[in-house]
Amino acid sequence: MVTRFQAGGRASRRRDSLVGEEPLEIRLDGSPLSVTMRTPGNDYELAAGFLVSEGVLTGKSQFGGAEYCRGSEAEGPNPFNVLNVLTGPGAGPVPAGLERNFYVTSSCGVCGKSSIDAVERASAFDPAGDRVGIELERLLGMAGRLRESQSVFEKTGGLHGAAIFDADSGELLATREDVGRHNAVDKVIGWALLEDLLPLTGCVLQVSGRASFELVQKAKMAGIPIFSAVSAPSSLAVELAVSSGITLAGFARGESLVAYSRPDRIRTGSEPSKGESSELPRELAR
Amino acid sequence: MVTRFQAGGRASRRRDSLVGEEPLEIRLDGSPLSVTMRTPGNDYELAAGFLVSEGVLTGKSQFGGAEYCRGSEAEGPNPFNVLNVLTGPGAGPVPAGLERNFYVTSSCGVCGKSSIDAVERASAFDPAGDRVGIELERLLGMAGRLRESQSVFEKTGGLHGAAIFDADSGELLATREDVGRHNAVDKVIGWALLEDLLPLTGCVLQVSGRASFELVQKAKMAGIPIFSAVSAPSSLAVELAVSSGITLAGFARGESLVAYSRPDRIRTGSEPSKGESSELPRELAR
Repeated sequence: MVTRFQAGGRASRRRDSLVGEEPLEIRLDGSPLSVTMRTPGNDYELAAGFLVSEGVLTGKSQFGGAEYCRGSEAEGPNPFNVLNVLTGPGAGPVPAGLERNFYVTSSCGVCGKSSIDAVERASAFDPAGDRVGIELERLLGMAGRLRESQSVFEKTGGLHGAAIFDADSGELLATREDVGRHNAVDKVIGWALLEDLLPLTGCVLQVSGRASFELVQKAKMAGIPIFSAVSAPSSLAVELAVSSGITLAGFARGESLVAYSRPDRIRTGSEPSKGESSELPRELAR
Repeated sequence: MVTRFQAGGRASRRRDSLVGEEPLEIRLDGSPLSVTMRTPGNDYELAAGFLVSEGVLTGKSQFGGAEYCRGSEAEGPNPFNVLNVLTGPGAGPVPAGLERNFYVTSSCGVCGKSSIDAVERASAFDPAGDRVGIELERLLGMAGRLRESQSVFEKTGGLHGAAIFDADSGELLATREDVGRHNAVDKVIGWALLEDLLPLTGCVLQVSGRASFELVQKAKMAGIPIFSAVSAPSSLAVELAVSSGITLAGFARGESLVAYSRPDRIRTGSEPSKGESSELPRELAR
Protein backbone atom coordinates (compact mmCIF):
# COMPACT_ATOMS: atom_id res chain seq x y z
CA MET A 1 0.00 0.00 0.00
CA VAL A 2 1.16 3.50 -0.77
CA THR A 3 -0.08 6.94 0.21
CA ARG A 4 -1.23 9.30 -2.51
CA PHE A 5 -1.04 13.00 -1.61
CA GLN A 6 -2.91 15.56 -3.66
CA ALA A 7 -2.51 19.32 -3.77
CA GLY A 8 -4.81 20.74 -1.13
CA GLY A 9 -3.78 18.11 1.35
CA ARG A 10 -5.94 15.11 0.52
CA ALA A 11 -4.19 11.85 1.35
CA SER A 12 -5.46 8.41 0.39
CA ARG A 13 -4.16 4.90 0.57
CA ARG A 14 -4.16 2.68 -2.45
CA ARG A 15 -2.62 -0.40 -3.90
CA ASP A 16 0.19 0.21 -6.32
CA SER A 17 2.02 -1.74 -8.98
CA LEU A 18 5.76 -1.51 -8.84
CA VAL A 19 8.27 -2.27 -11.48
CA GLY A 20 10.34 -5.22 -10.41
CA GLU A 21 14.05 -4.65 -10.14
CA GLU A 22 16.51 -7.36 -9.16
CA PRO A 23 20.21 -7.82 -9.75
CA LEU A 24 21.30 -10.34 -12.37
CA GLU A 25 24.84 -11.59 -12.40
CA ILE A 26 25.87 -12.73 -15.86
CA ARG A 27 28.60 -15.35 -16.03
CA LEU A 28 30.36 -16.65 -19.07
CA ASP A 29 31.51 -20.26 -18.87
CA GLY A 30 31.54 -19.93 -15.12
CA SER A 31 33.38 -16.62 -14.83
CA PRO A 32 31.45 -13.63 -13.47
CA LEU A 33 31.29 -10.85 -16.06
CA SER A 34 28.76 -8.29 -15.02
CA VAL A 35 25.98 -7.46 -12.62
CA THR A 36 23.04 -5.45 -13.87
CA MET A 37 19.90 -4.27 -12.14
CA ARG A 38 17.11 -5.57 -14.32
CA THR A 39 13.42 -6.33 -14.53
CA PRO A 40 13.25 -10.12 -14.10
CA GLY A 41 12.14 -12.02 -17.18
CA ASN A 42 13.75 -12.78 -20.53
CA ASP A 43 17.04 -13.29 -18.74
CA TYR A 44 18.46 -15.58 -21.44
CA GLU A 45 17.79 -12.87 -23.99
CA LEU A 46 19.26 -10.22 -21.72
CA ALA A 47 22.47 -12.18 -21.22
CA ALA A 48 22.70 -13.12 -24.90
CA GLY A 49 22.13 -9.53 -26.01
CA PHE A 50 24.68 -8.25 -23.53
CA LEU A 51 27.24 -10.65 -24.99
CA VAL A 52 26.36 -9.55 -28.53
CA SER A 53 26.87 -5.94 -27.45
CA GLU A 54 30.27 -6.84 -26.06
CA GLY A 55 31.33 -8.66 -29.21
CA VAL A 56 31.45 -12.12 -27.65
CA LEU A 57 28.52 -13.57 -29.62
CA THR A 58 27.58 -12.91 -33.23
CA GLY A 59 25.46 -15.94 -34.08
CA LYS A 60 23.16 -18.48 -32.47
CA SER A 61 25.62 -21.36 -32.84
CA GLN A 62 27.99 -19.58 -30.48
CA PHE A 63 25.37 -19.63 -27.75
CA GLY A 64 25.77 -22.99 -26.04
CA GLY A 65 22.91 -22.56 -23.58
CA ALA A 66 22.48 -20.96 -20.19
CA GLU A 67 21.61 -22.09 -16.71
CA TYR A 68 20.69 -20.40 -13.46
CA CYS A 69 23.18 -20.87 -10.68
CA ARG A 70 21.71 -22.24 -7.45
CA GLY A 71 21.95 -20.15 -4.32
CA SER A 72 23.21 -21.58 -1.07
CA GLU A 73 20.79 -23.71 0.95
CA ALA A 74 20.38 -20.98 3.52
CA GLU A 75 18.88 -18.81 0.83
CA GLY A 76 16.15 -21.29 0.05
CA PRO A 77 14.72 -21.61 -3.44
CA ASN A 78 16.74 -20.58 -6.45
CA PRO A 79 16.43 -16.79 -6.69
CA PHE A 80 17.21 -16.87 -10.42
CA ASN A 81 19.66 -14.01 -10.05
CA VAL A 82 22.82 -15.64 -11.39
CA LEU A 83 22.84 -16.84 -14.98
CA ASN A 84 25.75 -18.75 -16.46
CA VAL A 85 26.03 -18.63 -20.26
CA LEU A 86 27.95 -21.39 -22.01
CA THR A 87 29.73 -20.49 -25.22
CA GLY A 88 29.57 -22.66 -28.29
CA PRO A 89 32.14 -22.95 -31.08
CA GLY A 90 33.28 -19.69 -32.63
CA ALA A 91 32.46 -17.39 -29.73
CA GLY A 92 34.78 -14.43 -29.44
CA PRO A 93 37.10 -13.78 -26.54
CA VAL A 94 35.95 -11.69 -23.63
CA PRO A 95 37.19 -8.15 -24.24
CA ALA A 96 39.80 -6.99 -21.79
CA GLY A 97 38.13 -5.07 -18.98
CA LEU A 98 34.67 -6.17 -19.95
CA GLU A 99 32.19 -4.62 -17.61
CA ARG A 100 28.91 -2.96 -18.01
CA ASN A 101 30.22 0.55 -18.14
CA PHE A 102 33.47 0.05 -20.00
CA TYR A 103 35.70 -0.03 -16.99
CA VAL A 104 39.16 0.67 -18.33
CA THR A 105 42.38 0.15 -16.45
CA SER A 106 44.90 1.28 -19.07
CA SER A 107 46.70 4.48 -18.21
CA CYS A 108 45.12 7.48 -19.89
CA GLY A 109 43.12 4.99 -21.89
CA VAL A 110 40.22 7.31 -22.34
CA CYS A 111 41.96 10.54 -23.26
CA GLY A 112 40.82 12.49 -26.30
CA LYS A 113 40.27 10.65 -29.53
CA SER A 114 41.42 7.40 -28.02
CA SER A 115 38.58 7.72 -25.54
CA ILE A 116 36.05 6.70 -28.11
CA ASP A 117 38.32 3.94 -29.35
CA ALA A 118 38.61 2.68 -25.80
CA VAL A 119 34.89 2.35 -25.30
CA GLU A 120 33.94 1.45 -28.85
CA ARG A 121 33.73 -2.20 -29.87
CA ALA A 122 34.46 -3.51 -33.35
CA SER A 123 31.39 -5.02 -34.98
CA ALA A 124 31.30 -8.19 -37.06
CA PHE A 125 28.55 -6.57 -39.10
CA ASP A 126 28.35 -3.56 -41.40
CA PRO A 127 25.24 -1.44 -40.90
CA ALA A 128 26.76 1.24 -43.17
CA GLY A 129 26.42 -1.06 -46.17
CA ASP A 130 22.76 -1.87 -45.53
CA ARG A 131 20.78 -0.63 -48.54
CA VAL A 132 17.46 -0.58 -46.73
CA GLY A 133 15.12 2.37 -47.07
CA ILE A 134 12.06 3.22 -45.01
CA GLU A 135 8.92 5.23 -45.60
CA LEU A 136 8.85 8.28 -43.35
CA GLU A 137 5.26 7.66 -42.26
CA ARG A 138 6.12 4.11 -41.28
CA LEU A 139 9.12 5.23 -39.23
CA LEU A 140 7.06 7.98 -37.57
CA GLY A 141 4.51 5.40 -36.46
CA MET A 142 6.97 3.12 -34.69
CA ALA A 143 7.28 5.07 -31.43
CA GLY A 144 3.52 4.85 -30.96
CA ARG A 145 3.47 1.16 -31.81
CA LEU A 146 6.21 0.48 -29.28
CA ARG A 147 4.22 2.39 -26.67
CA GLU A 148 1.06 0.40 -27.47
CA SER A 149 2.96 -2.85 -27.14
CA GLN A 150 4.04 -1.68 -23.69
CA SER A 151 0.56 -0.73 -22.55
CA VAL A 152 0.12 -3.65 -20.19
CA PHE A 153 2.95 -2.32 -18.09
CA GLU A 154 2.24 1.33 -18.61
CA LYS A 155 0.44 1.74 -15.32
CA THR A 156 3.71 1.48 -13.47
CA GLY A 157 5.24 4.25 -15.54
CA GLY A 158 8.75 3.06 -14.94
CA LEU A 159 9.74 0.82 -17.81
CA HIS A 160 11.88 1.55 -20.82
CA GLY A 161 10.90 -0.16 -24.04
CA ALA A 162 12.77 -1.34 -27.11
CA ALA A 163 11.39 -2.86 -30.28
CA ILE A 164 12.70 -4.35 -33.50
CA PHE A 165 10.68 -3.60 -36.64
CA ASP A 166 11.13 -4.82 -40.19
CA ALA A 167 11.73 -1.60 -42.11
CA ASP A 168 10.13 -2.82 -45.32
CA SER A 169 6.94 -4.46 -44.09
CA GLY A 170 6.67 -2.47 -40.89
CA GLU A 171 6.13 -5.69 -38.94
CA LEU A 172 6.85 -5.52 -35.21
CA LEU A 173 9.24 -8.43 -34.71
CA ALA A 174 9.93 -8.16 -30.99
CA THR A 175 9.40 -5.81 -28.11
CA ARG A 176 10.86 -5.95 -24.61
CA GLU A 177 10.82 -3.81 -21.48
CA ASP A 178 13.10 -3.21 -18.55
CA VAL A 179 13.84 -0.76 -15.77
CA GLY A 180 17.14 -0.22 -17.56
CA ARG A 181 17.32 1.31 -21.02
CA HIS A 182 20.34 -0.79 -21.88
CA ASN A 183 18.65 -3.95 -20.73
CA ALA A 184 15.56 -3.43 -22.87
CA VAL A 185 17.82 -3.14 -25.93
CA ASP A 186 19.95 -6.11 -24.86
CA LYS A 187 16.78 -8.16 -24.57
CA VAL A 188 15.56 -7.51 -28.11
CA ILE A 189 19.04 -8.08 -29.49
CA GLY A 190 19.35 -11.27 -27.47
CA TRP A 191 15.97 -12.34 -28.81
CA ALA A 192 17.34 -11.87 -32.33
CA LEU A 193 20.44 -13.91 -31.56
CA LEU A 194 18.40 -16.78 -30.12
CA GLU A 195 16.11 -16.65 -33.17
CA ASP A 196 19.22 -16.79 -35.37
CA LEU A 197 18.35 -13.46 -36.97
CA LEU A 198 21.69 -11.64 -36.61
CA PRO A 199 22.67 -9.41 -38.29
CA LEU A 200 19.42 -7.47 -38.15
CA THR A 201 19.72 -6.29 -41.74
CA GLY A 202 16.81 -4.18 -42.90
CA CYS A 203 15.55 -3.58 -39.38
CA VAL A 204 14.74 -0.60 -37.18
CA LEU A 205 15.52 -0.40 -33.48
CA GLN A 206 12.99 1.87 -31.76
CA VAL A 207 13.57 2.91 -28.15
CA SER A 208 11.33 4.78 -25.74
CA GLY A 209 13.94 7.14 -24.37
CA ARG A 210 16.95 8.93 -25.65
CA ALA A 211 19.82 7.75 -27.82
CA SER A 212 23.06 7.34 -25.91
CA PHE A 213 26.41 6.27 -27.24
CA GLU A 214 26.04 2.87 -25.65
CA LEU A 215 22.67 2.18 -27.26
CA VAL A 216 23.90 3.16 -30.72
CA GLN A 217 26.84 0.86 -30.14
CA LYS A 218 24.48 -2.00 -29.38
CA ALA A 219 22.68 -1.34 -32.67
CA LYS A 220 26.00 -1.41 -34.47
CA MET A 221 27.04 -4.69 -32.85
CA ALA A 222 23.76 -6.28 -33.98
CA GLY A 223 24.03 -4.86 -37.51
CA ILE A 224 20.94 -2.65 -37.19
CA PRO A 225 20.91 0.10 -39.86
CA ILE A 226 18.21 2.39 -38.43
CA PHE A 227 17.94 3.62 -34.84
CA SER A 228 14.96 5.69 -33.74
CA ALA A 229 14.61 7.30 -30.31
CA VAL A 230 11.72 9.21 -28.76
CA SER A 231 14.09 11.68 -27.09
CA ALA A 232 17.35 13.38 -27.89
CA PRO A 233 20.64 11.78 -28.86
CA SER A 234 23.92 12.74 -27.24
CA SER A 235 26.75 14.21 -29.26
CA LEU A 236 28.78 11.04 -28.96
CA ALA A 237 25.82 8.94 -30.08
CA VAL A 238 25.61 11.06 -33.23
CA GLU A 239 29.35 10.74 -33.78
CA LEU A 240 29.14 6.97 -33.58
CA ALA A 241 26.06 6.81 -35.81
CA VAL A 242 27.86 8.88 -38.44
CA SER A 243 31.04 6.82 -38.29
CA SER A 244 29.21 3.50 -38.41
CA GLY A 245 26.69 4.49 -41.07
CA ILE A 246 23.60 4.07 -38.94
CA THR A 247 20.55 6.24 -39.59
CA LEU A 248 19.92 7.93 -36.26
CA ALA A 249 16.51 9.53 -35.70
CA GLY A 250 15.72 11.47 -32.53
CA PHE A 251 12.60 13.15 -31.17
CA ALA A 252 10.59 10.56 -33.09
CA ARG A 253 7.19 11.33 -31.62
CA GLY A 254 4.67 10.60 -34.31
CA GLU A 255 4.40 13.89 -36.17
CA SER A 256 8.04 14.53 -36.93
CA LEU A 257 11.56 13.38 -36.26
CA VAL A 258 15.09 14.70 -36.59
CA ALA A 259 17.63 12.69 -38.57
CA TYR A 260 21.18 13.12 -37.33
CA SER A 261 22.88 10.78 -39.79
CA ARG A 262 22.13 8.95 -43.03
CA PRO A 263 18.80 10.68 -43.78
CA ASP A 264 19.07 9.20 -47.26
CA ARG A 265 17.44 6.01 -45.99
CA ILE A 266 14.23 7.88 -45.11
CA ARG A 267 11.81 8.08 -48.05
CA THR A 268 9.28 10.87 -47.94
CA GLY A 269 7.34 9.82 -51.02
CA SER A 270 7.35 13.46 -52.09
CA GLU A 271 10.06 15.86 -53.10
CA PRO A 272 11.52 17.93 -50.30
CA SER A 273 9.94 21.38 -50.17
CA LYS A 274 11.58 24.12 -52.24
CA GLY A 275 13.81 26.88 -51.09
CA GLU A 276 16.28 26.51 -48.28
CA SER A 277 14.81 23.19 -47.39
CA SER A 278 15.14 21.69 -50.85
CA GLU A 279 18.26 19.63 -50.37
CA LEU A 280 19.07 16.84 -48.06
CA PRO A 281 22.41 17.57 -46.49
CA ARG A 282 25.05 15.90 -48.59
CA GLU A 283 27.54 15.64 -45.79
CA LEU A 284 25.10 13.67 -43.73
CA ALA A 285 24.06 11.42 -46.60
CA ARG A 286 27.70 10.34 -46.87
CA MET B 1 23.13 20.40 -39.41
CA VAL B 2 20.35 17.88 -39.05
CA THR B 3 17.35 17.00 -41.18
CA ARG B 4 13.89 17.41 -39.73
CA PHE B 5 11.21 15.24 -41.30
CA GLN B 6 7.54 16.01 -40.74
CA ALA B 7 4.51 13.83 -41.35
CA GLY B 8 3.42 14.43 -44.92
CA GLY B 9 6.97 14.31 -46.16
CA ARG B 10 8.33 17.79 -45.56
CA ALA B 11 12.07 17.75 -44.89
CA SER B 12 14.09 20.72 -43.73
CA ARG B 13 17.62 21.32 -42.59
CA ARG B 14 18.34 23.13 -39.41
CA ARG B 15 20.97 23.68 -36.79
CA ASP B 16 20.64 21.61 -33.69
CA SER B 17 21.94 21.68 -30.14
CA LEU B 18 23.25 18.40 -28.89
CA VAL B 19 23.84 17.28 -25.37
CA GLY B 20 27.55 16.78 -24.87
CA GLU B 21 28.62 13.30 -23.83
CA GLU B 22 32.22 12.38 -23.16
CA PRO B 23 33.82 9.65 -21.11
CA LEU B 24 35.34 10.59 -17.77
CA GLU B 25 37.76 8.23 -16.10
CA ILE B 26 37.79 8.72 -12.34
CA ARG B 27 40.99 7.76 -10.56
CA LEU B 28 41.61 7.64 -6.85
CA ASP B 29 45.16 8.41 -5.76
CA GLY B 30 46.32 7.35 -9.20
CA SER B 31 44.38 4.12 -9.52
CA PRO B 32 41.64 3.96 -12.16
CA LEU B 33 38.28 3.30 -10.54
CA SER B 34 35.53 3.91 -13.02
CA VAL B 35 34.67 5.29 -16.42
CA THR B 36 31.36 7.04 -16.89
CA MET B 37 29.80 8.70 -19.91
CA ARG B 38 28.97 12.18 -18.72
CA THR B 39 28.08 15.70 -19.77
CA PRO B 40 31.36 17.61 -19.32
CA GLY B 41 31.33 20.19 -16.56
CA ASN B 42 31.33 19.98 -12.75
CA ASP B 43 33.72 17.06 -13.00
CA TYR B 44 35.15 17.62 -9.52
CA GLU B 45 31.66 17.42 -8.12
CA LEU B 46 30.87 14.37 -10.20
CA ALA B 47 33.96 12.53 -8.98
CA ALA B 48 33.44 13.64 -5.37
CA GLY B 49 29.79 12.59 -5.43
CA PHE B 50 30.65 9.25 -6.97
CA LEU B 51 33.11 8.64 -4.14
CA VAL B 52 30.48 9.63 -1.56
CA SER B 53 28.08 7.17 -3.17
CA GLU B 54 30.69 4.45 -2.91
CA GLY B 55 31.42 5.19 0.74
CA VAL B 56 34.97 6.43 0.19
CA LEU B 57 34.30 10.05 1.17
CA THR B 58 32.00 11.32 3.90
CA GLY B 59 33.39 14.81 4.56
CA LYS B 60 35.20 17.62 2.83
CA SER B 61 38.44 17.09 4.76
CA GLN B 62 38.79 13.67 3.13
CA PHE B 63 38.85 15.28 -0.31
CA GLY B 64 42.47 16.18 -0.90
CA GLY B 65 41.94 17.83 -4.27
CA ALA B 66 41.73 16.63 -7.86
CA GLU B 67 43.67 17.11 -11.06
CA TYR B 68 43.12 16.31 -14.69
CA CYS B 69 45.56 13.82 -16.13
CA ARG B 70 47.35 14.98 -19.28
CA GLY B 71 46.88 12.99 -22.46
CA SER B 72 49.84 11.84 -24.50
CA GLU B 73 51.50 14.42 -26.76
CA ALA B 74 50.01 12.81 -29.85
CA GLU B 75 46.59 13.62 -28.51
CA GLY B 76 47.29 17.31 -28.32
CA PRO B 77 45.69 19.52 -25.69
CA ASN B 78 44.43 18.07 -22.44
CA PRO B 79 41.05 16.53 -23.22
CA PHE B 80 39.97 16.77 -19.56
CA ASN B 81 38.68 13.23 -19.63
CA VAL B 82 40.74 11.69 -16.84
CA LEU B 83 40.40 13.11 -13.34
CA ASN B 84 42.56 11.94 -10.47
CA VAL B 85 41.14 12.51 -6.99
CA LEU B 86 43.52 12.66 -4.05
CA THR B 87 42.23 11.46 -0.71
CA GLY B 88 42.80 13.37 2.50
CA PRO B 89 42.99 12.00 6.02
CA GLY B 90 40.13 9.77 7.09
CA ALA B 91 38.99 8.67 3.65
CA GLY B 92 37.52 5.18 3.60
CA PRO B 93 38.99 2.25 1.73
CA VAL B 94 37.91 1.52 -1.81
CA PRO B 95 35.18 -1.12 -1.61
CA ALA B 96 36.18 -4.46 -3.10
CA GLY B 97 34.99 -4.64 -6.67
CA LEU B 98 34.18 -0.98 -6.89
CA GLU B 99 32.84 -0.21 -10.29
CA ARG B 100 30.02 1.84 -11.57
CA ASN B 101 27.53 -0.95 -11.73
CA PHE B 102 28.51 -2.97 -8.69
CA TYR B 103 30.58 -5.50 -10.52
CA VAL B 104 30.81 -8.42 -8.15
CA THR B 105 33.20 -11.30 -8.45
CA SER B 106 32.22 -13.33 -5.41
CA SER B 107 30.59 -16.64 -6.20
CA CYS B 108 26.83 -16.44 -6.01
CA GLY B 109 27.34 -13.04 -4.47
CA VAL B 110 24.08 -11.70 -5.73
CA CYS B 111 21.71 -14.54 -4.94
CA GLY B 112 18.48 -13.86 -3.11
CA LYS B 113 18.55 -11.73 -0.01
CA SER B 114 22.30 -11.47 -0.13
CA SER B 115 21.91 -9.84 -3.54
CA ILE B 116 20.83 -6.60 -1.97
CA ASP B 117 23.53 -6.88 0.64
CA ALA B 118 26.08 -7.32 -2.11
CA VAL B 119 25.12 -4.15 -3.92
CA GLU B 120 24.13 -2.09 -0.91
CA ARG B 121 26.72 0.11 0.76
CA ALA B 122 26.77 0.95 4.45
CA SER B 123 26.22 4.63 5.11
CA ALA B 124 28.04 6.76 7.65
CA PHE B 125 24.82 8.73 8.06
CA ASP B 126 21.35 7.93 9.34
CA PRO B 127 18.55 9.39 7.24
CA ALA B 128 16.04 7.30 9.23
CA GLY B 129 16.68 9.40 12.31
CA ASP B 130 16.17 12.72 10.53
CA ARG B 131 13.21 14.46 12.21
CA VAL B 132 12.56 16.81 9.31
CA GLY B 133 9.04 17.41 8.05
CA ILE B 134 7.93 19.06 4.84
CA GLU B 135 4.80 20.84 3.73
CA LEU B 136 3.07 18.88 0.97
CA GLU B 137 2.61 21.95 -1.23
CA ARG B 138 6.29 22.76 -0.95
CA LEU B 139 7.30 19.22 -1.92
CA LEU B 140 4.83 19.22 -4.82
CA GLY B 141 6.43 22.37 -6.20
CA MET B 142 9.96 21.03 -6.32
CA ALA B 143 9.69 19.07 -9.56
CA GLY B 144 8.60 22.22 -11.35
CA ARG B 145 11.33 24.29 -9.78
CA LEU B 146 13.93 21.74 -10.84
CA ARG B 147 12.55 21.87 -14.37
CA GLU B 148 12.69 25.68 -14.40
CA SER B 149 16.28 25.62 -13.23
CA GLN B 150 17.04 23.33 -16.18
CA SER B 151 15.33 25.51 -18.76
CA VAL B 152 18.50 26.81 -20.35
CA PHE B 153 19.30 23.29 -21.47
CA GLU B 154 15.78 22.21 -22.12
CA LYS B 155 16.01 22.77 -25.84
CA THR B 156 18.20 19.71 -26.19
CA GLY B 157 15.68 17.55 -24.39
CA GLY B 158 18.25 15.05 -23.30
CA LEU B 159 19.43 15.99 -19.85
CA HIS B 160 18.50 14.52 -16.51
CA GLY B 161 18.31 16.92 -13.61
CA ALA B 162 18.86 16.64 -9.88
CA ALA B 163 18.39 19.26 -7.20
CA ILE B 164 18.90 19.65 -3.48
CA PHE B 165 16.30 21.69 -1.59
CA ASP B 166 16.13 22.71 2.03
CA ALA B 167 12.95 21.06 3.24
CA ASP B 168 12.12 23.72 5.78
CA SER B 169 12.71 26.94 3.86
CA GLY B 170 12.16 25.45 0.42
CA GLU B 171 15.38 27.06 -0.78
CA LEU B 172 16.95 25.53 -3.90
CA LEU B 173 20.50 24.85 -2.76
CA ALA B 174 21.98 23.29 -5.90
CA THR B 175 20.89 21.92 -9.23
CA ARG B 176 22.91 19.95 -11.78
CA GLU B 177 22.31 18.22 -15.10
CA ASP B 178 23.82 15.34 -16.98
CA VAL B 179 23.12 12.87 -19.76
CA GLY B 180 23.27 10.24 -17.04
CA ARG B 181 20.75 10.14 -14.21
CA HIS B 182 23.34 8.84 -11.80
CA ASN B 183 25.78 11.54 -12.76
CA ALA B 184 23.31 14.36 -12.13
CA VAL B 185 22.78 13.03 -8.61
CA ASP B 186 26.51 12.46 -8.07
CA LYS B 187 27.11 16.08 -9.07
CA VAL B 188 24.73 17.58 -6.49
CA ILE B 189 26.04 15.26 -3.80
CA GLY B 190 29.61 16.12 -4.76
CA TRP B 191 28.67 19.80 -4.60
CA ALA B 192 27.47 19.21 -1.04
CA LEU B 193 30.69 17.44 -0.08
CA LEU B 194 32.83 20.24 -1.48
CA GLU B 195 30.67 22.80 0.36
CA ASP B 196 31.16 20.75 3.53
CA LEU B 197 27.42 20.20 3.87
CA LEU B 198 27.34 16.43 4.40
CA PRO B 199 25.21 14.87 5.75
CA LEU B 200 22.37 16.61 3.95
CA THR B 201 20.13 16.58 7.02
CA GLY B 202 16.77 18.25 6.46
CA CYS B 203 17.14 18.21 2.68
CA VAL B 204 15.16 16.93 -0.27
CA LEU B 205 16.71 15.31 -3.34
CA GLN B 206 14.48 15.94 -6.36
CA VAL B 207 15.21 14.10 -9.62
CA SER B 208 13.70 14.51 -13.07
CA GLY B 209 13.25 10.84 -13.85
CA ARG B 210 12.43 7.71 -11.96
CA ALA B 211 13.74 6.40 -8.65
CA SER B 212 16.06 3.45 -9.04
CA PHE B 213 17.76 1.46 -6.33
CA GLU B 214 21.07 3.10 -7.11
CA LEU B 215 19.71 6.64 -6.79
CA VAL B 216 18.06 5.91 -3.45
CA GLN B 217 21.35 4.44 -2.33
CA LYS B 218 23.12 7.67 -3.25
CA ALA B 219 20.61 9.60 -1.14
CA LYS B 220 21.27 7.25 1.76
CA MET B 221 25.05 7.65 1.45
CA ALA B 222 24.66 11.44 1.59
CA GLY B 223 22.24 11.30 4.52
CA ILE B 224 19.30 12.74 2.57
CA PRO B 225 15.97 12.01 4.32
CA ILE B 226 13.53 12.81 1.49
CA PHE B 227 13.78 11.62 -2.13
CA SER B 228 11.28 12.84 -4.73
CA ALA B 229 11.11 11.56 -8.30
CA VAL B 230 8.97 12.68 -11.23
CA SER B 231 8.47 9.10 -12.39
CA ALA B 232 8.03 5.69 -10.81
CA PRO B 233 10.28 3.96 -8.34
CA SER B 234 11.37 0.36 -8.77
CA SER B 235 10.47 -2.28 -6.22
CA LEU B 236 14.06 -2.47 -4.98
CA ALA B 237 14.21 1.31 -4.63
CA VAL B 238 11.15 1.15 -2.38
CA GLU B 239 12.67 -1.71 -0.38
CA LEU B 240 15.83 0.28 0.22
CA ALA B 241 13.91 3.46 1.09
CA VAL B 242 11.87 1.53 3.67
CA SER B 243 14.90 -0.17 5.19
CA SER B 244 16.92 3.03 5.38
CA GLY B 245 14.09 5.26 6.58
CA ILE B 246 14.04 7.58 3.59
CA THR B 247 10.78 9.21 2.53
CA LEU B 248 10.39 8.15 -1.09
CA ALA B 249 7.93 10.09 -3.26
CA GLY B 250 7.20 9.07 -6.85
CA PHE B 251 5.10 10.55 -9.65
CA ALA B 252 5.75 13.95 -8.09
CA ARG B 253 4.35 16.10 -10.88
CA GLY B 254 2.94 19.19 -9.25
CA GLU B 255 -0.63 18.21 -8.46
CA SER B 256 -0.03 15.01 -6.54
CA LEU B 257 2.56 12.46 -5.54
CA VAL B 258 2.71 8.93 -4.21
CA ALA B 259 4.61 8.24 -1.00
CA TYR B 260 6.13 4.77 -0.85
CA SER B 261 7.82 5.06 2.52
CA ARG B 262 7.81 7.32 5.57
CA PRO B 263 4.78 9.44 4.57
CA ASP B 264 4.80 10.73 8.16
CA ARG B 265 7.32 13.39 7.11
CA ILE B 266 4.84 14.96 4.69
CA ARG B 267 2.60 17.56 6.35
CA THR B 268 -0.68 18.26 4.65
CA GLY B 269 -1.77 21.08 6.94
CA SER B 270 -5.21 19.51 6.98
CA GLU B 271 -6.60 16.30 8.36
CA PRO B 272 -6.65 13.40 5.93
CA SER B 273 -10.11 12.95 4.41
CA LYS B 274 -12.55 10.66 6.23
CA GLY B 275 -13.55 7.13 5.37
CA GLU B 276 -11.22 4.59 3.87
CA SER B 277 -8.64 7.27 3.31
CA SER B 278 -8.63 8.57 6.84
CA GLU B 279 -5.52 6.84 8.11
CA LEU B 280 -1.98 7.05 7.05
CA PRO B 281 -0.64 3.54 6.71
CA ARG B 282 0.96 2.63 9.99
CA GLU B 283 3.27 0.04 8.50
CA LEU B 284 4.73 2.65 6.21
CA ALA B 285 5.11 5.26 8.91
CA ARG B 286 7.33 2.80 10.80
